[in-house]
Amino acid sequence: MTIATHSLHISMHGDSQLKNLTSSMNDLLSQSGITNGTLTLFVKHTTASVMIIEDEPGIRADTKNFWNGIIPPKCDWEHNVRNQGEDNGHSHLRGQLQGPSLTIPIVQGTLTLGTWQQIVLIDFDTRARTRELVIQIMGE
Amino acid sequence: MTIATHSLHISMHGDSQLKNLTSSMNDLLSQSGITNGTLTLFVKHTTASVMIIEDEPGIRADTKNFWNGIIPPKCDWEHNVRNQGEDNGHSHLRGQLQGPSLTIPIVQGTLTLGTWQQIVLIDFDTRARTRELVIQIMGE
Amino acid sequence: MTIATHSLHISMHGDSQLKNLTSSMNDLLSQSGITNGTLTLFVKHTTASVMIIEDEPGIRADTKNFWNGIIPPKCDWEHNVRNQGEDNGHSHLRGQLQGPSLTIPIVQGTLTLGTWQQIVLIDFDTRARTRELVIQIMGE
Repeated sequence: MTIATHSLHISMHGDSQLKNLTSSMNDLLSQSGITNGTLTLFVKHTTASVMIIEDEPGIRADTKNFWNGIIPPKCDWEHNVRNQGEDNGHSHLRGQLQGPSLTIPIVQGTLTLGTWQQIVLIDFDTRARTRELVIQIMGE
Repeated sequence: MTIATHSLHISMHGDSQLKNLTSSMNDLLSQSGITNGTLTLFVKHTTASVMIIEDEPGIRADTKNFWNGIIPPKCDWEHNVRNQGEDNGHSHLRGQLQGPSLTIPIVQGTLTLGTWQQIVLIDFDTRARTRELVIQIMGE
Repeated sequence: MTIATHSLHISMHGDSQLKNLTSSMNDLLSQSGITNGTLTLFVKHTTASVMIIEDEPGIRADTKNFWNGIIPPKCDWEHNVRNQGEDNGHSHLRGQLQGPSLTIPIVQGTLTLGTWQQIVLIDFDTRARTRELVIQIMGE
Protein backbone atom coordinates (compact mmCIF):
# COMPACT_ATOMS: atom_id res chain seq x y z
CA MET A 1 0.00 0.00 0.00
CA THR A 2 1.12 3.55 -0.73
CA ILE A 3 0.13 6.59 1.33
CA ALA A 4 0.79 10.01 -0.21
CA THR A 5 0.21 13.09 1.94
CA HIS A 6 0.03 16.69 0.82
CA SER A 7 -0.73 20.03 2.41
CA LEU A 8 -2.31 23.00 0.62
CA HIS A 9 -2.48 26.60 1.83
CA ILE A 10 -5.17 28.75 0.21
CA SER A 11 -5.91 32.44 0.74
CA MET A 12 -9.64 33.03 1.26
CA HIS A 13 -11.69 36.11 2.14
CA GLY A 14 -14.63 34.46 3.95
CA ASP A 15 -18.33 35.37 3.51
CA SER A 16 -19.11 31.96 1.92
CA GLN A 17 -16.41 32.39 -0.75
CA LEU A 18 -16.01 29.26 -2.88
CA LYS A 19 -12.74 27.96 -4.34
CA ASN A 20 -12.71 25.12 -6.86
CA LEU A 21 -10.11 22.48 -5.93
CA THR A 22 -10.89 19.80 -8.53
CA SER A 23 -7.87 20.30 -10.76
CA SER A 24 -5.54 20.51 -7.74
CA MET A 25 -6.88 17.18 -6.48
CA ASN A 26 -6.45 15.60 -9.93
CA ASP A 27 -2.86 16.84 -10.06
CA LEU A 28 -2.00 15.41 -6.63
CA LEU A 29 -3.57 12.09 -7.60
CA SER A 30 -1.48 11.94 -10.80
CA GLN A 31 1.71 12.64 -8.85
CA SER A 32 0.94 9.85 -6.36
CA GLY A 33 0.88 7.10 -8.96
CA ILE A 34 -1.96 5.43 -7.03
CA THR A 35 -4.55 3.77 -9.30
CA ASN A 36 -7.01 2.30 -6.79
CA GLY A 37 -7.95 3.51 -3.32
CA THR A 38 -9.37 6.63 -1.73
CA LEU A 39 -8.54 10.32 -1.49
CA THR A 40 -9.41 12.04 1.79
CA LEU A 41 -9.54 15.83 1.79
CA PHE A 42 -9.61 17.50 5.22
CA VAL A 43 -9.73 21.22 6.09
CA LYS A 44 -8.02 22.11 9.38
CA HIS A 45 -10.47 24.84 10.46
CA THR A 46 -13.83 25.04 12.23
CA THR A 47 -15.25 27.84 10.05
CA ALA A 48 -14.62 26.34 6.61
CA SER A 49 -15.78 23.17 4.85
CA VAL A 50 -15.18 21.08 1.76
CA MET A 51 -18.07 19.86 -0.36
CA ILE A 52 -19.09 18.67 -3.83
CA ILE A 53 -21.30 20.87 -6.02
CA GLU A 54 -22.10 21.67 -9.61
CA ASP A 55 -19.89 24.74 -9.85
CA GLU A 56 -21.78 27.36 -11.85
CA PRO A 57 -22.67 30.97 -10.91
CA GLY A 58 -26.30 30.21 -10.08
CA ILE A 59 -25.40 27.48 -7.58
CA ARG A 60 -22.71 29.73 -6.10
CA ALA A 61 -25.28 32.48 -5.51
CA ASP A 62 -27.86 30.04 -4.13
CA THR A 63 -25.31 28.52 -1.75
CA LYS A 64 -24.48 31.91 -0.26
CA ASN A 65 -28.15 32.89 0.03
CA PHE A 66 -29.10 29.55 1.54
CA TRP A 67 -26.54 29.86 4.35
CA ASN A 68 -27.45 33.48 5.07
CA GLY A 69 -31.07 32.37 5.42
CA ILE A 70 -30.69 29.24 7.51
CA ILE A 71 -27.83 30.38 9.80
CA PRO A 72 -27.71 34.17 9.58
CA PRO A 73 -24.85 36.37 10.76
CA LYS A 74 -26.13 38.06 13.91
CA CYS A 75 -24.73 39.58 17.07
CA ASP A 76 -26.50 37.38 19.56
CA TRP A 77 -25.03 33.96 18.86
CA GLU A 78 -23.67 32.87 22.24
CA HIS A 79 -20.20 32.43 20.74
CA ASN A 80 -20.20 36.18 20.07
CA VAL A 81 -21.88 37.20 23.32
CA ARG A 82 -19.58 35.19 25.59
CA ASN A 83 -16.26 35.80 23.78
CA GLN A 84 -15.36 39.46 23.40
CA GLY A 85 -14.39 40.44 19.89
CA GLU A 86 -15.90 37.37 18.20
CA ASP A 87 -18.45 37.87 15.41
CA ASN A 88 -18.37 34.50 13.68
CA GLY A 89 -20.77 32.33 15.65
CA HIS A 90 -22.71 31.66 12.44
CA SER A 91 -19.48 30.62 10.66
CA HIS A 92 -18.88 27.90 13.24
CA LEU A 93 -22.42 26.52 13.01
CA ARG A 94 -22.21 26.40 9.20
CA GLY A 95 -18.79 24.73 9.23
CA GLN A 96 -19.74 22.01 11.67
CA LEU A 97 -22.93 21.16 9.76
CA GLN A 98 -21.37 21.11 6.27
CA GLY A 99 -18.35 19.25 7.66
CA PRO A 100 -14.54 19.33 7.29
CA SER A 101 -13.85 16.39 4.99
CA LEU A 102 -14.60 14.42 1.83
CA THR A 103 -13.61 10.86 0.90
CA ILE A 104 -13.62 10.06 -2.82
CA PRO A 105 -12.86 6.67 -4.40
CA ILE A 106 -10.02 6.31 -6.92
CA VAL A 107 -10.58 3.82 -9.73
CA GLN A 108 -8.17 3.24 -12.62
CA GLY A 109 -6.14 6.29 -11.63
CA THR A 110 -9.10 8.67 -11.61
CA LEU A 111 -11.34 10.21 -8.96
CA THR A 112 -14.83 8.78 -9.49
CA LEU A 113 -16.49 12.17 -9.82
CA GLY A 114 -19.63 12.39 -11.95
CA THR A 115 -19.87 14.73 -14.93
CA TRP A 116 -21.08 17.71 -12.91
CA GLN A 117 -19.32 17.05 -9.61
CA GLN A 118 -16.68 19.58 -8.59
CA ILE A 119 -14.72 19.69 -5.31
CA VAL A 120 -14.85 23.06 -3.56
CA LEU A 121 -13.62 24.75 -0.40
CA ILE A 122 -16.15 27.11 1.22
CA ASP A 123 -15.01 29.72 3.73
CA PHE A 124 -17.73 30.76 6.19
CA ASP A 125 -15.62 33.15 8.27
CA THR A 126 -15.98 36.94 8.51
CA ARG A 127 -12.46 37.97 7.51
CA ALA A 128 -9.66 37.00 5.14
CA ARG A 129 -7.55 34.03 6.25
CA THR A 130 -5.15 31.45 4.86
CA ARG A 131 -6.70 28.00 5.03
CA GLU A 132 -4.75 24.76 5.34
CA LEU A 133 -5.97 21.49 3.84
CA VAL A 134 -4.56 17.98 4.18
CA ILE A 135 -4.88 15.52 1.30
CA GLN A 136 -4.29 11.86 2.12
CA ILE A 137 -4.23 9.44 -0.85
CA MET A 138 -4.21 5.74 0.12
CA GLY A 139 -4.14 2.75 -2.18
CA GLU A 140 -2.12 0.76 -4.68
CA MET B 1 -4.35 -5.16 1.20
CA THR B 2 -7.31 -5.89 -1.06
CA ILE B 3 -9.34 -3.23 -2.88
CA ALA B 4 -12.66 -4.32 -4.37
CA THR B 5 -14.56 -1.85 -6.54
CA HIS B 6 -18.13 -2.07 -7.73
CA SER B 7 -20.55 0.12 -9.62
CA LEU B 8 -24.33 0.15 -9.16
CA HIS B 9 -26.93 1.72 -11.45
CA ILE B 10 -30.30 2.44 -9.85
CA SER B 11 -33.46 3.86 -11.45
CA MET B 12 -34.92 6.64 -9.32
CA HIS B 13 -37.85 9.04 -9.83
CA GLY B 14 -36.65 12.00 -7.73
CA ASP B 15 -38.81 14.07 -5.35
CA SER B 16 -36.85 12.82 -2.29
CA GLN B 17 -37.44 9.16 -3.19
CA LEU B 18 -35.55 6.81 -0.87
CA LYS B 19 -34.01 3.46 -1.87
CA ASN B 20 -32.65 1.08 0.76
CA LEU B 21 -29.18 -0.20 -0.23
CA THR B 22 -28.25 -2.12 2.93
CA SER B 23 -28.62 -5.64 1.56
CA SER B 24 -26.77 -4.69 -1.65
CA MET B 25 -23.86 -3.38 0.44
CA ASN B 26 -23.82 -6.55 2.57
CA ASP B 27 -23.77 -8.69 -0.60
CA LEU B 28 -20.85 -6.77 -2.09
CA LEU B 29 -18.93 -7.05 1.18
CA SER B 30 -19.48 -10.82 1.27
CA GLN B 31 -18.22 -11.18 -2.31
CA SER B 32 -15.06 -9.19 -1.50
CA GLY B 33 -13.83 -11.60 1.15
CA ILE B 34 -12.55 -8.59 3.15
CA THR B 35 -12.93 -9.00 6.92
CA ASN B 36 -11.43 -5.76 8.27
CA GLY B 37 -11.29 -2.31 6.71
CA THR B 38 -13.74 0.25 5.38
CA LEU B 39 -16.50 0.47 2.77
CA THR B 40 -16.86 3.81 0.97
CA LEU B 41 -20.11 4.45 -0.88
CA PHE B 42 -20.11 7.39 -3.30
CA VAL B 43 -22.93 8.69 -5.51
CA LYS B 44 -21.75 10.31 -8.76
CA HIS B 45 -24.40 13.06 -8.90
CA THR B 46 -24.92 16.53 -7.42
CA THR B 47 -28.68 16.13 -6.81
CA ALA B 48 -28.65 12.86 -4.87
CA SER B 49 -27.07 11.74 -1.58
CA VAL B 50 -26.42 8.67 0.52
CA MET B 51 -27.20 8.61 4.20
CA ILE B 52 -27.99 6.38 7.19
CA ILE B 53 -31.49 6.38 8.69
CA GLU B 54 -33.94 4.20 10.56
CA ASP B 55 -35.92 3.12 7.52
CA GLU B 56 -39.59 3.10 8.50
CA PRO B 57 -42.55 4.89 6.84
CA GLY B 58 -42.74 7.68 9.44
CA ILE B 59 -39.08 8.66 9.02
CA ARG B 60 -39.48 8.48 5.23
CA ALA B 61 -42.41 10.92 5.38
CA ASP B 62 -40.62 13.22 7.84
CA THR B 63 -37.49 13.28 5.66
CA LYS B 64 -39.46 14.41 2.61
CA ASN B 65 -41.37 17.03 4.63
CA PHE B 66 -38.20 18.30 6.30
CA TRP B 67 -36.45 18.95 2.97
CA ASN B 68 -39.52 20.60 1.44
CA GLY B 69 -39.62 22.94 4.42
CA ILE B 70 -35.97 23.85 4.76
CA ILE B 71 -35.02 24.04 1.06
CA PRO B 72 -38.30 24.34 -0.87
CA PRO B 73 -38.72 23.82 -4.61
CA LYS B 74 -39.24 27.30 -6.04
CA CYS B 75 -38.74 29.12 -9.31
CA ASP B 76 -36.41 31.82 -8.09
CA TRP B 77 -33.33 29.87 -7.07
CA GLU B 78 -30.54 31.50 -9.09
CA HIS B 79 -29.68 28.12 -10.64
CA ASN B 80 -33.15 28.15 -12.24
CA VAL B 81 -33.18 31.86 -13.09
CA ARG B 82 -29.78 31.89 -14.78
CA ASN B 83 -29.98 28.55 -16.63
CA GLN B 84 -32.92 28.23 -18.97
CA GLY B 85 -34.93 25.06 -18.50
CA GLU B 86 -33.54 24.25 -15.04
CA ASP B 87 -35.97 23.74 -12.16
CA ASN B 88 -33.81 21.84 -9.69
CA GLY B 89 -31.91 24.52 -7.77
CA HIS B 90 -33.34 23.14 -4.52
CA SER B 91 -32.15 19.62 -5.48
CA HIS B 92 -28.56 20.85 -5.75
CA LEU B 93 -28.64 22.63 -2.38
CA ARG B 94 -30.07 19.55 -0.68
CA GLY B 95 -27.54 17.22 -2.29
CA GLN B 96 -24.51 19.30 -1.37
CA LEU B 97 -25.63 19.64 2.26
CA GLN B 98 -26.54 15.98 2.81
CA GLY B 99 -23.41 14.90 0.93
CA PRO B 100 -22.39 12.29 -1.67
CA SER B 101 -20.64 9.66 0.42
CA LEU B 102 -20.53 7.39 3.46
CA THR B 103 -17.59 5.53 5.01
CA ILE B 104 -18.49 2.54 7.18
CA PRO B 105 -16.03 0.34 9.12
CA ILE B 106 -15.86 -3.40 8.44
CA VAL B 107 -15.12 -5.61 11.45
CA GLN B 108 -15.05 -9.42 11.38
CA GLY B 109 -16.55 -9.45 7.90
CA THR B 110 -19.53 -7.26 8.78
CA LEU B 111 -20.45 -3.60 8.37
CA THR B 112 -20.60 -2.08 11.85
CA LEU B 113 -24.16 -0.82 11.47
CA GLY B 114 -26.26 -0.49 14.61
CA THR B 115 -29.56 -2.32 15.00
CA TRP B 116 -31.64 0.43 13.39
CA GLN B 117 -29.12 1.83 10.90
CA GLN B 118 -29.97 1.36 7.24
CA ILE B 119 -28.05 2.71 4.23
CA VAL B 120 -30.22 4.64 1.79
CA LEU B 121 -29.93 6.58 -1.45
CA ILE B 122 -32.06 9.74 -1.61
CA ASP B 123 -32.83 11.36 -4.95
CA PHE B 124 -33.59 15.09 -4.69
CA ASP B 125 -34.06 15.76 -8.41
CA THR B 126 -37.28 16.74 -10.21
CA ARG B 127 -37.42 13.94 -12.78
CA ALA B 128 -36.68 10.23 -13.18
CA ARG B 129 -33.01 9.37 -13.70
CA THR B 130 -30.63 6.43 -13.45
CA ARG B 131 -28.13 7.00 -10.65
CA GLU B 132 -24.62 5.56 -10.54
CA LEU B 133 -22.87 4.68 -7.30
CA VAL B 134 -19.30 3.55 -6.68
CA ILE B 135 -18.53 1.15 -3.83
CA GLN B 136 -14.88 0.88 -2.76
CA ILE B 137 -14.07 -1.82 -0.18
CA MET B 138 -10.51 -1.62 1.23
CA GLY B 139 -8.93 -3.89 3.80
CA GLU B 140 -7.65 -7.36 4.53
CA MET C 1 -0.90 -2.29 6.38
CA THR C 2 -2.18 -2.35 9.95
CA ILE C 3 -5.86 -2.11 10.91
CA ALA C 4 -6.64 -1.38 14.57
CA THR C 5 -10.26 -1.53 15.70
CA HIS C 6 -11.73 -0.28 18.94
CA SER C 7 -15.18 0.06 20.45
CA LEU C 8 -16.23 2.74 22.94
CA HIS C 9 -19.37 2.80 25.08
CA ILE C 10 -20.42 6.21 26.38
CA SER C 11 -23.31 7.13 28.69
CA MET C 12 -25.27 10.09 27.32
CA HIS C 13 -28.44 11.85 28.42
CA GLY C 14 -29.69 13.16 25.07
CA ASP C 15 -31.13 16.65 24.43
CA SER C 16 -28.15 17.63 22.22
CA GLN C 17 -25.62 16.77 24.93
CA LEU C 18 -22.04 17.05 23.67
CA LYS C 19 -19.12 14.84 24.74
CA ASN C 20 -15.56 15.67 23.74
CA LEU C 21 -13.76 12.59 22.36
CA THR C 22 -10.50 14.18 21.18
CA SER C 23 -8.21 12.84 23.91
CA SER C 24 -9.76 9.36 23.59
CA MET C 25 -9.04 9.38 19.85
CA ASN C 26 -5.45 10.53 20.45
CA ASP C 27 -4.96 7.73 22.99
CA LEU C 28 -6.26 5.06 20.61
CA LEU C 29 -4.02 6.38 17.84
CA SER C 30 -0.97 6.24 20.11
CA GLN C 31 -1.76 2.64 21.08
CA SER C 32 -2.08 1.62 17.42
CA GLY C 33 1.48 2.57 16.51
CA ILE C 34 0.18 3.76 13.11
CA THR C 35 1.98 6.85 11.81
CA ASN C 36 0.28 7.44 8.44
CA GLY C 37 -3.25 6.66 7.33
CA THR C 38 -6.78 7.50 8.40
CA LEU C 39 -8.95 7.22 11.50
CA THR C 40 -12.65 6.54 10.91
CA LEU C 41 -15.03 7.19 13.80
CA PHE C 42 -18.55 5.75 13.43
CA VAL C 43 -21.48 5.96 15.85
CA LYS C 44 -23.85 2.96 15.68
CA HIS C 45 -27.07 4.90 16.27
CA THR C 46 -29.58 6.87 14.19
CA THR C 47 -30.20 9.59 16.78
CA ALA C 48 -26.60 10.60 17.52
CA SER C 49 -23.77 12.00 15.41
CA VAL C 50 -20.06 12.77 15.51
CA MET C 51 -18.72 16.12 14.35
CA ILE C 52 -15.84 18.58 14.64
CA ILE C 53 -16.33 21.89 16.45
CA GLU C 54 -14.51 24.53 18.44
CA ASP C 55 -15.51 23.23 21.85
CA GLU C 56 -16.29 26.25 24.02
CA PRO C 57 -19.46 27.05 26.02
CA GLY C 58 -20.78 29.59 23.49
CA ILE C 59 -20.62 27.14 20.57
CA ARG C 60 -22.19 24.44 22.75
CA ALA C 61 -25.13 26.73 23.53
CA ASP C 62 -25.46 27.85 19.90
CA THR C 63 -25.43 24.25 18.67
CA LYS C 64 -28.30 23.29 20.94
CA ASN C 65 -30.30 26.39 20.03
CA PHE C 66 -29.65 25.93 16.32
CA TRP C 67 -31.02 22.38 16.30
CA ASN C 68 -34.07 23.31 18.39
CA GLY C 69 -34.82 26.02 15.85
CA ILE C 70 -34.26 24.17 12.60
CA ILE C 71 -35.69 20.75 13.59
CA PRO C 72 -37.81 21.32 16.69
CA PRO C 73 -39.08 18.62 19.04
CA LYS C 74 -42.81 18.36 18.32
CA CYS C 75 -45.55 15.77 18.58
CA ASP C 76 -46.56 15.67 14.96
CA TRP C 77 -43.48 14.28 13.26
CA GLU C 78 -44.80 11.25 11.37
CA HIS C 79 -42.32 9.01 13.21
CA ASN C 80 -44.14 9.91 16.43
CA VAL C 81 -47.65 9.81 14.96
CA ARG C 82 -47.27 6.42 13.29
CA ASN C 83 -45.29 4.63 16.02
CA GLN C 84 -46.96 4.59 19.41
CA GLY C 85 -44.74 5.71 22.25
CA GLU C 86 -42.14 7.39 20.04
CA ASP C 87 -41.29 11.05 20.69
CA ASN C 88 -37.93 11.36 18.92
CA GLY C 89 -38.77 12.07 15.28
CA HIS C 90 -36.69 15.25 15.48
CA SER C 91 -33.74 13.29 16.88
CA HIS C 92 -33.72 11.05 13.80
CA LEU C 93 -33.84 13.96 11.35
CA ARG C 94 -30.99 15.71 13.14
CA GLY C 95 -28.85 12.56 13.28
CA GLN C 96 -29.25 11.71 9.60
CA LEU C 97 -28.37 15.27 8.53
CA GLN C 98 -25.33 15.71 10.79
CA GLY C 99 -24.20 12.17 9.97
CA PRO C 100 -22.76 9.14 11.80
CA SER C 101 -19.07 9.31 10.90
CA LEU C 102 -15.83 11.25 10.54
CA THR C 103 -12.65 10.36 8.65
CA ILE C 104 -9.49 12.15 9.79
CA PRO C 105 -6.02 11.83 8.23
CA ILE C 106 -3.07 10.65 10.34
CA VAL C 107 0.31 12.20 9.51
CA GLN C 108 3.53 11.55 11.45
CA GLY C 109 1.61 9.77 14.18
CA THR C 110 -0.84 12.61 14.79
CA LEU C 111 -4.42 13.39 13.78
CA THR C 112 -4.29 16.40 11.45
CA LEU C 113 -6.69 18.47 13.54
CA GLY C 114 -6.32 22.25 13.41
CA THR C 115 -5.69 24.33 16.52
CA TRP C 116 -9.37 24.76 17.34
CA GLN C 117 -10.78 21.48 16.02
CA GLN C 118 -12.19 19.10 18.60
CA ILE C 119 -13.99 15.78 17.96
CA VAL C 120 -17.36 15.50 19.70
CA LEU C 121 -20.26 13.11 20.02
CA ILE C 122 -23.70 14.75 20.03
CA ASP C 123 -26.74 12.88 21.33
CA PHE C 124 -30.04 14.09 19.85
CA ASP C 125 -32.32 11.59 21.60
CA THR C 126 -34.93 12.34 24.26
CA ARG C 127 -33.70 10.04 27.03
CA ALA C 128 -30.47 8.72 28.55
CA ARG C 129 -28.79 5.93 26.61
CA THR C 130 -25.40 4.22 26.30
CA ARG C 131 -23.91 4.93 22.87
CA GLU C 132 -21.51 2.63 21.04
CA LEU C 133 -18.82 3.95 18.69
CA VAL C 134 -16.44 2.07 16.41
CA ILE C 135 -12.96 3.45 15.75
CA GLN C 136 -11.10 2.00 12.75
CA ILE C 137 -7.47 3.10 12.33
CA MET C 138 -5.88 2.05 9.01
CA GLY C 139 -2.36 2.74 7.81
CA GLU C 140 1.30 1.99 8.29
